[in-house]
Amino acid sequence: MSTPSKIIYTFTDEAPALATYSLLPIVEAFAASADIAVETRDISLAGRILASFADQLDADKKVDDDLAKLAELTNQPDANIIKLPNISASVPQLKAAIAELQALGYNIPNFPEDPQTDAEKDVRARYSKVLGSAVNPVLREGNSDRRAPAAVKAYARKHPHSMGKWSKASQSHADYMRGGDFFSSEQSITMDKAGDVRIEFVGKDGKVEVKKQLALLEGEVLDGMFMSCNKLRAFFEETLQDCKETGVMWSLHVKATMMKISHPIVFGHAVSVYYKDVFDKYGELFKELGVNPNNGISSVYDKIKSLPASQQEEILHDIHEVYAHRPEMAMVDSVKGITNLHIPSDVIVDASMPAMIRNSGQMWGKDGKQKDTKAVMPESTYARIYQEMINFCKTNGAFDPVTMGSVPNVGLMAQKAEEYGSHDKTFEMQADGTMRVVLADGTVLMQHEVEKGDIWRACQTKDAPIRDWVKLAVTRARQSNTPAVFWLDPERAHDMQLQKKVETYLQEHDLSGLDIRIMGYNEAIRLSMERMIRGKDTISVTGNVLRDYLTDLFPIMELGTSAKMLSIVPLMAGGGMYETGAGGSAPKHVQQLVEENYLRWDSLGEFLALAVSLEETGIKTGNTKAKILGKTLDQATGKLLDNNKSPARKVGQIDNRGSHFYLALYWSQALAAQDDDAELKAHFTPLAKQLSEQEAAIVAELAAVQGKPVDIGGYYRSNPELTSKVMRPSTTFNSALAALNA
Amino acid sequence: MSTPSKIIYTFTDEAPALATYSLLPIVEAFAASADIAVETRDISLAGRILASFADQLDADKKVDDDLAKLAELTNQPDANIIKLPNISASVPQLKAAIAELQALGYNIPNFPEDPQTDAEKDVRARYSKVLGSAVNPVLREGNSDRRAPAAVKAYARKHPHSMGKWSKASQSHADYMRGGDFFSSEQSITMDKAGDVRIEFVGKDGKVEVKKQLALLEGEVLDGMFMSCNKLRAFFEETLQDCKETGVMWSLHVKATMMKISHPIVFGHAVSVYYKDVFDKYGELFKELGVNPNNGISSVYDKIKSLPASQQEEILHDIHEVYAHRPEMAMVDSVKGITNLHIPSDVIVDASMPAMIRNSGQMWGKDGKQKDTKAVMPESTYARIYQEMINFCKTNGAFDPVTMGSVPNVGLMAQKAEEYGSHDKTFEMQADGTMRVVLADGTVLMQHEVEKGDIWRACQTKDAPIRDWVKLAVTRARQSNTPAVFWLDPERAHDMQLQKKVETYLQEHDLSGLDIRIMGYNEAIRLSMERMIRGKDTISVTGNVLRDYLTDLFPIMELGTSAKMLSIVPLMAGGGMYETGAGGSAPKHVQQLVEENYLRWDSLGEFLALAVSLEETGIKTGNTKAKILGKTLDQATGKLLDNNKSPARKVGQIDNRGSHFYLALYWSQALAAQDDDAELKAHFTPLAKQLSEQEAAIVAELAAVQGKPVDIGGYYRSNPELTSKVMRPSTTFNSALAALNA
Repeated sequence: MSTPSKIIYTFTDEAPALATYSLLPIVEAFAASADIAVETRDISLAGRILASFADQLDADKKVDDDLAKLAELTNQPDANIIKLPNISASVPQLKAAIAELQALGYNIPNFPEDPQTDAEKDVRARYSKVLGSAVNPVLREGNSDRRAPAAVKAYARKHPHSMGKWSKASQSHADYMRGGDFFSSEQSITMDKAGDVRIEFVGKDGKVEVKKQLALLEGEVLDGMFMSCNKLRAFFEETLQDCKETGVMWSLHVKATMMKISHPIVFGHAVSVYYKDVFDKYGELFKELGVNPNNGISSVYDKIKSLPASQQEEILHDIHEVYAHRPEMAMVDSVKGITNLHIPSDVIVDASMPAMIRNSGQMWGKDGKQKDTKAVMPESTYARIYQEMINFCKTNGAFDPVTMGSVPNVGLMAQKAEEYGSHDKTFEMQADGTMRVVLADGTVLMQHEVEKGDIWRACQTKDAPIRDWVKLAVTRARQSNTPAVFWLDPERAHDMQLQKKVETYLQEHDLSGLDIRIMGYNEAIRLSMERMIRGKDTISVTGNVLRDYLTDLFPIMELGTSAKMLSIVPLMAGGGMYETGAGGSAPKHVQQLVEENYLRWDSLGEFLALAVSLEETGIKTGNTKAKILGKTLDQATGKLLDNNKSPARKVGQIDNRGSHFYLALYWSQALAAQDDDAELKAHFTPLAKQLSEQEAAIVAELAAVQGKPVDIGGYYRSNPELTSKVMRPSTTFNSALAALNA
Repeated sequence: MSTPSKIIYTFTDEAPALATYSLLPIVEAFAASADIAVETRDISLAGRILASFADQLDADKKVDDDLAKLAELTNQPDANIIKLPNISASVPQLKAAIAELQALGYNIPNFPEDPQTDAEKDVRARYSKVLGSAVNPVLREGNSDRRAPAAVKAYARKHPHSMGKWSKASQSHADYMRGGDFFSSEQSITMDKAGDVRIEFVGKDGKVEVKKQLALLEGEVLDGMFMSCNKLRAFFEETLQDCKETGVMWSLHVKATMMKISHPIVFGHAVSVYYKDVFDKYGELFKELGVNPNNGISSVYDKIKSLPASQQEEILHDIHEVYAHRPEMAMVDSVKGITNLHIPSDVIVDASMPAMIRNSGQMWGKDGKQKDTKAVMPESTYARIYQEMINFCKTNGAFDPVTMGSVPNVGLMAQKAEEYGSHDKTFEMQADGTMRVVLADGTVLMQHEVEKGDIWRACQTKDAPIRDWVKLAVTRARQSNTPAVFWLDPERAHDMQLQKKVETYLQEHDLSGLDIRIMGYNEAIRLSMERMIRGKDTISVTGNVLRDYLTDLFPIMELGTSAKMLSIVPLMAGGGMYETGAGGSAPKHVQQLVEENYLRWDSLGEFLALAVSLEETGIKTGNTKAKILGKTLDQATGKLLDNNKSPARKVGQIDNRGSHFYLALYWSQALAAQDDDAELKAHFTPLAKQLSEQEAAIVAELAAVQGKPVDIGGYYRSNPELTSKVMRPSTTFNSALAALNA
């Protein structure tokens, strides 16, 4: 009847990993009824560290390189992967994990801060591959399909989240550069055949320095652009003066975590312009101390600790003097006095702007009160969409979750498409001169006159992902019977290269009856919002950065959070990856579990991803039972939301485990109630009956354990037996589940 | 070589009529060189009065009914009419004109205030035809083509008018109803064949009252709509509360002069809501006194004058108490303490909103300072475009006259098309019930449930003007090689009827190479503005109200005034009418002439209209010389603007007559300089030489007369000999002109 199939469930870190101990047994038990095997792959930070040193570990301690295996799998047409959020490790996190693993008896080396020997350099190289965002770029061999699942949308309509009222007289706005930024200098070319290019800097003395060599594919798009340091600093000064005059609070919104080369520099200029008096006065001293404004004003606080108390006091006094003539700044934490310029990673534009817009266009001042705000986003490319939404809210009031439509996204992401992959092609200019991109034969493809301090960057977009992205857009428009808009800005050189491809590749599809348009960003967001307030859906088909921004922006308006979005990566090779939990891996949740035996992680993302994964399995392998499992899982999720059985926040309420029990209860009930498959009905009817009858007992068993500390034997690599015991405390429930396939 | 042709130059009132005494001899002299006769038609108020009583006047006092003749002429394909602004007489103006004419020996009857006998009723009926806007509706047998002439646009770019800076933090905005207004209740039908309809009110008791009978043509569009009195009042209260909370100043923008039935009622509700406490307290007394809030709060001041001083004082005290808890209101004249609610005709939306937007989005408060303002425009149909422009200015800053493009207009106007012709079909409901439009056979075409106080209105649009309007849009798009956008809102029932016709009639034309689009109002204005700030032009193709609004809004941004626009009415029968002087007939200018012999009227509109009139004559009759006259007149106008030879404002500077001399000088120079026509060159070379040589003498003669009172023998019908003498004081110039065709 059906080809045997399997679902790969990733084992990751922190809260999602803990939740997996409870949820996976349920999933395995239910999936077995449709002959679907559920296998795990360990891509946790600990697992990845150990895999990196497999050659040096004792035989009994060796682990497989599951990430590499998964990466291979993404190129198989039958890949079906549930991808939970994992740690993107910073150096401190990496060191902590190493220490924990060493304590557990794994013979791995320390992290070499300053590698000197070849051996140390080898170690450092291995650890470097584990650092940062090391998983997604390897696995994302497909473009992105993100949308609000029907059950989640229905829940938001019934139980709308709070939305701050917008005043028509609001002074809040987005402010961005009008010239001198990446947007206004962008050049873009498409390779007519494969070829090598050099990115070069030509000094005023004519000396050529090769910054980077790239091997480009046929049809690959390459962009070059730069941001003027002088114009950026002048812009910051203007925004500060303007806020001073109007009394509107000043805030800065960048994405230093993702644009990890360029945005810290931009952030650093904001710091040194805002605190100009201090940096002017102590310039030499700060240089000696190693103060780096790119790390925020906190860098000053850190570095001056080595100074005599009186000198520290003088500097702190001068910092405070700055506030007297600078406008009020938005606070990250007004209680602790943490400002917007404290550290670069505190305010992340794609999260901070929707939060501001949802909060009546206001942020918090140093007195803890919310105030109208100038949201400074120097780069104008995407900043304009926030101003458009702000104007829209001033005109039409706050969005209404009860009536608003949805803006799902089809995002270009595969093979590190576009801006997010250009860290190694971003350079801060050390002198005045010319940056140019040159073909092997010397042909100059593009060039910019730059000045010292300017930030120049290139970015690549391969042709195959674009073609796949167009296909995905058409597929989604067809499947959801929804208009799709390609957000391609007529004033962006890059987008105009893409538009040619989009127009070409659209011809490969049957577009009859579809509404597919190409629009500039402002027009596109405006149309989407006009439709949205009339309850209509519009698919946004965007590049990689807008994918990231919009899949926070719209969900936060529609659902109050982006964590409830379905995030599918239809792999270019034909398989599917289903990502869950945009909310990160939640370290605070682990702490709460260990201290109070209460896990508030919400596995909703996993429920939603699993349902699609099951449905896809059904479609691809002709496994009708799988389809029914998927459909009933969605029904169960809807009921769970409706009955408010998602985890709460505090001991004494329902937690992650209780929520899993209700999922199993509702899922089994839905399977028992359906009449499409008699076998499944017969198989699950007893379980549904049993769980219904034992609801009170199970809930009591689950509640009984709460409130006391527990030991799970580790943080980065907890003990499986201990953790499983903690996460499955209801023997009644465990027995019922065990009996299902017995 | 060419068919003989003539231009009809209208003789009107006040300043434009005075200027005609100086300009017309120049025009006649120049036009004669191309065999073009220039004839006048007297459509002055005095002329129209006399024509109405021609049957009762002595033979030597009889005058022709020139307006009736002109109206006939508009139906001739060779009509070529220069239409100067005339008086739209109020009753006081009419009475003054009657008295003056009687004193001049014209045996005309007095104006009967309260006609009783048949004879009196006949007199009153004759005078009624002279009252108000009695000329334009008779002559406008065509749609409207308004644009900034090239010379004027070039002048604005070289000498940009002041534009108030916009703050991104501005709190100013437009506010309008979200439901309950005409927009949200509009219904619209198109007659599939000619037929009579009744507009009826059906009371709660079932009694039917016929309010109006209409004979509709095949293809005619009829709309019905109403504004809810309760929702309007609730809306006003909300806007006042909102301003009180935000501290933004409150202002009301309606067009009570043009929407002369509905808008005074709307205005009256604003007055009685703002001053609610006073109207609540003195309701009965005000009714006895005949206070009508529709006439503004000034009506209270007027009517209470009959009361004892102490009672007056009490009421005035209570009025002042209102200001304590109501928000600050925008002032019409802060020095005199005239508020926005003083009288309904002081604030006219199509002039007041552009003025506010040009003025940084601010109006004046009672302290004479400019402040951010809530512009209240209850009816949302057109109010939205102002909010769109305000948002645009907040985002992009004030428009820049130096670089901005233009938005010319092609407006549906012929045969009283659309809303401006519905005064006789607008009703304030006297009771709850149903308003319906019924065919002769009883078929109900549309109906609305209404409540007492609601304002219901219908409006008609004939098919032939729509077809002509589409043709004019295509013609203008073709001639100016400019994209044209039909502003038709997908949410307006009326516009959707029009859109069907537009789509049909567009098929009658060759559209190859043209960019013609149909867009909702917000989209259309946004696109036009986005193009405008990039220096690009976009033709707005609109209905009658938007024609009126946009031909103030865009010109005031582009040129600082709408008076410099070229206003062409291509008549449906094939002729052309060229309107001049959107600034009215300027009574204060007459006073200045009589007191100081200085006329500051600017004949720019006449220059521009004449040039197009000459060009059209040339095209239609194959008269090459006429075309050259037109072209060189435009060059002369451009030079006149460049050399700053427009009339100034005060004695001692150049006035209207001096400006005319320079026009003649530059025009003759341009004709002498051209090489397209040797005859014209030869004909004008001596005049150009003579005027150049005698410039100083002529300017001295013109300046010499200034500063002393003069007698022109009348106001409404000045003495032609006396006036001509005053307006042509330079014998040197007069002789040179006389010699031209001698």
